[in-house]
Amino acid sequence: MEIDSLRKLYVEDLKDVYSAEKQILQALPKMVKKASNQQLRKALEEHRLITEKQVDRLDRIFESLGKSPRGKKCKAMEGLLEEGKELLQEDIDPEVLDAGIIGAAQKVEHYEIATYGTLRTYAELLGENEHVKLLQQTLNEEGDADKKLTQLAESTINVEAMAEA
Amino acid sequence: MEIDSLRKLYVEDLKDVYSAEKQILQALPKMVKKASNQQLRKALEEHRLITEKQVDRLDRIFESLGKSPRGKKCKAMEGLLEEGKELLQEDIDPEVLDAGIIGAAQKVEHYEIATYGTLRTYAELLGENEHVKLLQQTLNEEGDADKKLTQLAESTINVEAMAEA
Repeated sequence: MEIDSLRKLYVEDLKDVYSAEKQILQALPKMVKKASNQQLRKALEEHRLITEKQVDRLDRIFESLGKSPRGKKCKAMEGLLEEGKELLQEDIDPEVLDAGIIGAAQKVEHYEIATYGTLRTYAELLGENEHVKLLQQTLNEEGDADKKLTQLAESTINVEAMAEA
Repeated sequence: MEIDSLRKLYVEDLKDVYSAEKQILQALPKMVKKASNQQLRKALEEHRLITEKQVDRLDRIFESLGKSPRGKKCKAMEGLLEEGKELLQEDIDPEVLDAGIIGAAQKVEHYEIATYGTLRTYAELLGENEHVKLLQQTLNEEGDADKKLTQLAESTINVEAMAEA
């Protein structure tokens, strides 16, 4: 396919992040299962519910474009989650694993922050004002999730991991 | 290897980002070659020089730890750059490609922002004050690079890409 316009690039990137979100939805329960800290489990579980809403928003965008969200596999998210999977398989102390899970989750968050930021800019340029609102909402949620994980890491998890050192 | 302490997780994550930086150094010249906008080419070229300094900083950290930086391949960066490579191979208009290159570069930046943020937190907890300084310096540079790319995208590139729409 020839990508001869920003609109086509926009649709390609939307498909990419749709695939990324679907992969995240599959990965999150495995992370919850391996996490020890109650607050971390709760944060990851909440993020799964938020992710479902973010997928719904993407569905609405694709519907308004008259396009299918399918047909692309986000290789970047595949790589990010592959690293997370390796971590879960390591012979690793529970508190240290919690610190590692937060690090892995923050990498995923930042991938989404970069991607949704780009998509929102494209949507602005394309005059897709309804999309801008939806994408900004998701972008805010991702930023909040990242900050929450940082607070959790600094206040609890890493201190517990240090106690194991 | 058993990861029974935050220190071991810290070293593993340092190896991971070392591999990521080395991959970025290989990928940047290909991006420069395909970029059309002069300011974008300059920004990417400058970032290659900054990345070399960031690798030097990591070398200093590994030296102080008495560890080798080698032995890990960052799969997340592999996936991120694989996506960038696919973009460069698309049948795509130059101005639209420039917009896509910025998006790909910002995903790479955000991966690094998340990773160096985690590493700095670990270094603080481990009392590695010299590392904290070095990691913070890199973190600031990544943040600046990300902002610069956003400005470039909003001011020039995307507008040119729109003209093609």
